[in-house]
Amino acid sequence: MSRKPATRLYVEEDLAAGGVVGLSPDHAHFLRSVLRLEPGRTVALFNGRDGEWLARIDGIGKGWASLSLEGQTRLQAAGPDVWLYFAPIKRARLDFLVQKATELGAARIQPVVTQRTIVERVKADRLRANAMEAAEQSERLDLPEIGEPGKLDRALDEHPQDRPLLVCAEAGDAVSMADAARSLSADRGCTILIGPEGGFTPDELRFLADAPAVRFVGLGPRILRAETAALSALALWQALAGDGAQRPPHRDWM
Amino acid sequence: MSRKPATRLYVEEDLAAGGVVGLSPDHAHFLRSVLRLEPGRTVALFNGRDGEWLARIDGIGKGWASLSLEGQTRLQAAGPDVWLYFAPIKRARLDFLVQKATELGAARIQPVVTQRTIVERVKADRLRANAMEAAEQSERLDLPEIGEPGKLDRALDEHPQDRPLLVCAEAGDAVSMADAARSLSADRGCTILIGPEGGFTPDELRFLADAPAVRFVGLGPRILRAETAALSALALWQALAGDGAQRPPHRDWM
Repeated sequence: MSRKPATRLYVEEDLAAGGVVGLSPDHAHFLRSVLRLEPGRTVALFNGRDGEWLARIDGIGKGWASLSLEGQTRLQAAGPDVWLYFAPIKRARLDFLVQKATELGAARIQPVVTQRTIVERVKADRLRANAMEAAEQSERLDLPEIGEPGKLDRALDEHPQDRPLLVCAEAGDAVSMADAARSLSADRGCTILIGPEGGFTPDELRFLADAPAVRFVGLGPRILRAETAALSALALWQALAGDGAQRPPHRDWM
Repeated sequence: MSRKPATRLYVEEDLAAGGVVGLSPDHAHFLRSVLRLEPGRTVALFNGRDGEWLARIDGIGKGWASLSLEGQTRLQAAGPDVWLYFAPIKRARLDFLVQKATELGAARIQPVVTQRTIVERVKADRLRANAMEAAEQSERLDLPEIGEPGKLDRALDEHPQDRPLLVCAEAGDAVSMADAARSLSADRGCTILIGPEGGFTPDELRFLADAPAVRFVGLGPRILRAETAALSALALWQALAGDGAQRPPHRDWM
């Protein structure tokens, strides 16, 4: 029979040869009641540390599943070092933004509260759940780190001084995101900052302009909503400085 | 007082000096009951042909509004000639895809039904409504053309033979989308084709590979959902072959 895994799940436990892994109640419910998998079927597991493993279901019941690791299918590899800082937006679009940023390989997703941020309450747990599901579907070997929401000035104070910080700006002087991404080497990493729908305040813009690592970048002549700007900037950075030239992993499961 | 328009609306009527324009019931309701605008306030109007005009509300009531054109604020300009062909997806994500593709400047949005397309019923009217709202918000001067859903083979038969057709492919040989976009000149135009979640069938891939204008392109090592792939490809084409280096229009409304 084909050993192609029925799905791909993130787990926190270590993954090593001969290991046995128990799943969370949510994951066990997904395998049992949604996918209707029975013992003997295989799934792929990853934990952000030990690569990807093929695991066989030994036993499964209401809220639990026990799997034995059959072999490693991918070695752990570090993803591109790109972070997304963004002013929170409304719930449905926020879920979407986190899912898509995860698909596009963001290593860190950090909500930052600006003076004109309207939506200030962000549930980091909800962001993590969205990120996990997107990572499972996107073949990522890790989850993005989800930062606790914090104020912009504090986020910038804590931001590495020498790490390039690209601030997407709809007005004022800016280089194109493509030119900015081309000028950066992936090993320096990069942070992309997306402002609130109302834009940054003049105070915030002055504060940003004074930060040595900041460059203001443009995303073309159309006004993009916050989530569109974030995805465009991430896609461009991956294509021009990150791993955009790589191909999805191909594995023969037979 | 500031003449900054309270909002920006797409209309079908001609826009010319001295003209008087009536709004649709939906737009009139939006101005009256949502924005609560009264006579004397201004809005921006565009119709895809005559640039953008500042219009003053002369009268407004239940389901109607009459505006007089005060002057042209932008000249009509053709947008980049990039088309998006995609296999329809479920409703919420489809709405999202059309909104974002419009923000990213797609000139044409064409649903194509492939052998593995699950969602076959697409309401073109709903796509148009999403496109219009996104165009109004994005400062576009036109709406994307929304094609009637059709089968893939027919869509390809009707596709201009010499127009580059970039097919996003998760498996098999492909050049990076960035390399493909860089190699294209904007004046030739470009069509981006996104397959269904289940992928193209071997028959479809052979059919595509035989088309002279087709190039298979990759979007990096992660598996992207259909809407993420579409937005990434559009953003990359705009940045590297389209108008990504331009800035949003700046106008002083005082």
